Amino acid sequence: MSRFFSSRYAGLTPYTPGEQPQERKYIKLNTNESPFPPSPGVLKAVSEESQRLQLYSDPESRLLRGALAKHYGLQTEQLLVGNGSDELLNFAFMAFCDENCPAIFPDITYGFYPVYANLNHIPYQEIPLREDLSFSFEDLPDRKGTVFLANPNAPTGIAKSVTEIEQLLQKRQDSVLVVDEAYVDFGAESVLPIVNRYDNLLVIQTFSKSRSMAGARLGFAAGCAELIRDLNTLKYSTNPYNVNRMTSAAGIAALQEDAYYRENARIIEENRRFTTDALRELGFFVPDSKANFLFARSERVNGGKLYRDLKERGILVRHFDKPRIKDYVRITIGTREQMEALLKEIKAILEEQ
Amino acid sequence: MSRFFSSRYAGLTPYTPGEQPQERKYIKLNTNESPFPPSPGVLKAVSEESQRLQLYSDPESRLLRGALAKHYGLQTEQLLVGNGSDELLNFAFMAFCDENCPAIFPDITYGFYPVYANLNHIPYQEIPLREDLSFSFEDLPDRKGTVFLANPNAPTGIAKSVTEIEQLLQKRQDSVLVVDEAYVDFGAESVLPIVNRYDNLLVIQTFSKSRSMAGARLGFAAGCAELIRDLNTLKYSTNPYNVNRMTSAAGIAALQEDAYYRENARIIEENRRFTTDALRELGFFVPDSKANFLFARSERVNGGKLYRDLKERGILVRHFDKPRIKDYVRITIGTREQMEALLKEIKAILEEQ
Repeated sequence: MSRFFSSRYAGLTPYTPGEQPQERKYIKLNTNESPFPPSPGVLKAVSEESQRLQLYSDPESRLLRGALAKHYGLQTEQLLVGNGSDELLNFAFMAFCDENCPAIFPDITYGFYPVYANLNHIPYQEIPLREDLSFSFEDLPDRKGTVFLANPNAPTGIAKSVTEIEQLLQKRQDSVLVVDEAYVDFGAESVLPIVNRYDNLLVIQTFSKSRSMAGARLGFAAGCAELIRDLNTLKYSTNPYNVNRMTSAAGIAALQEDAYYRENARIIEENRRFTTDALRELGFFVPDSKANFLFARSERVNGGKLYRDLKERGILVRHFDKPRIKDYVRITIGTREQMEALLKEIKAILEEQ
Repeated sequence: MSRFFSSRYAGLTPYTPGEQPQERKYIKLNTNESPFPPSPGVLKAVSEESQRLQLYSDPESRLLRGALAKHYGLQTEQLLVGNGSDELLNFAFMAFCDENCPAIFPDITYGFYPVYANLNHIPYQEIPLREDLSFSFEDLPDRKGTVFLANPNAPTGIAKSVTEIEQLLQKRQDSVLVVDEAYVDFGAESVLPIVNRYDNLLVIQTFSKSRSMAGARLGFAAGCAELIRDLNTLKYSTNPYNVNRMTSAAGIAALQEDAYYRENARIIEENRRFTTDALRELGFFVPDSKANFLFARSERVNGGKLYRDLKERGILVRHFDKPRIKDYVRITIGTREQMEALLKEIKAILEEQ
């Protein structure tokens, strides 16, 4: 810390991203990336658009928002795009939380939520997941507050139904509900179809997972036009040209080749089923996941050791050294071959115990 | 504004970006873009990198920061890259200003500075430019405060020398000086070579102007390692993967083809000389510009009318409807042909008066 750093942020603990090793070649199952490359149209669109890099991107991202609107049956003014969904989550914390309106989220969820709250000096309440890692809406306090709901939840993979979320929206009409659907395309239900019915619902999605674009940084927020306008006030006060030309073009092309990405998501679901069954046969506790990852715990080897042993054997998974979940590892679902390699190494590690 | 928008931001007036018209084809001299396309190596690097979009970018941007460090003779830990320099300017306001340390900048400068101050609830003091639009450091208050100095200044184009800035750094050792060098490559002096000598100097540059990458969004900050660490705390609390893979690859390639961009900057300087002379011959007041734009005022036609008349004739320039500068237009320096077309239309407009 320099002698000039504002005391406002001096105590801040930043988010820790998953390892992105540059040296050794790992089977990388630690950051929930897709094992599938972007579709041909994306490569072509990027290549074409790169010839116009000397010109600013459209700050309104009209073409991309128009394509999203058409794809999801929404109006363009109900959509905002961002430099990854992280940027939009931060805007949502800024816009819809403050001293008088705390943030509320599970104690075990996307690790960035408390960071955003602290960054913006927003009070927050963490609701403990139940013993089986499920999140019951009955455990939410009655008070006003913006609920952030990762659905499916991370790192558990457990999903809520639209019916349940709709009941919550009706019960909490005086507060915004932010549904973070980063992992929704792998078999969970999206609330995008009910966006038009609620003025207190904000949905955030990403192109990082099911659309193979983690390295392009593209997320979007959908809600009623008023909520989106609020987020735009923050965007235009922070970084008006937040989405670059290449990423915009890639996003539009990916929407046009939706069938490719849906087929990839189907394969991931198939491999998830296969891996879940295999891990359970090995005695692991694995909650039913609707995401492109599994959260798994074995009585025979603790999470930290399993993570380290797998890394030594050339496979990266993610371990969170935090109370309640330090016995688990989070495993991204990759190709069938990657999953078989993982299971082989896990078996070998268990036999050594 | 929705009924949920936090009162913290309810009064915020966002930044207004220059027009990015999607319909009609204009000679676009309004947002200080380069008239030259990116170099061949940039196109190739983007195209190659797009095949790996399914993987996150390196949150530390090690390769790009390494290339910048080599290019500018700095250490990697003295550099931070951002999604455009706007993102980094916002981090600098957050990190180095607060209730006890106001922001200080000229009353006529980059229009985003007061927006960042308001966004972050930072008090700020605007120092009036003198009548000839120059900024005298003698007019700065003695008190503690972080000075933001666009050098060359926008929209005037007037530049300070390194000697002058060094004197200011020595005089104000208890405060950070942020030198925003967005336009430095068109003939002004950069303070990058003296970064190692001051712990209170932060330099911010962009690839948007001289490196033809406005649409790729890439900026960087350079300073002593402690200042950069402070900015990193904010980056990792906001958007760790802020620079996407394609932009990183483009940035590295652009540094390798530096000669192409230096030649382009030289042509811009030549066209600036030509346009300055021609406008002065037409009776315009035009301060000596070291940037890729001119700020120009005629007694015969006011800024708003000149902007509108030029737009009707297919040429976009920028007009700021603000006290003290509403008589001016800001004109981006383009190709010789574009400048000749501009001068032809300006002559015709003046003749109509």
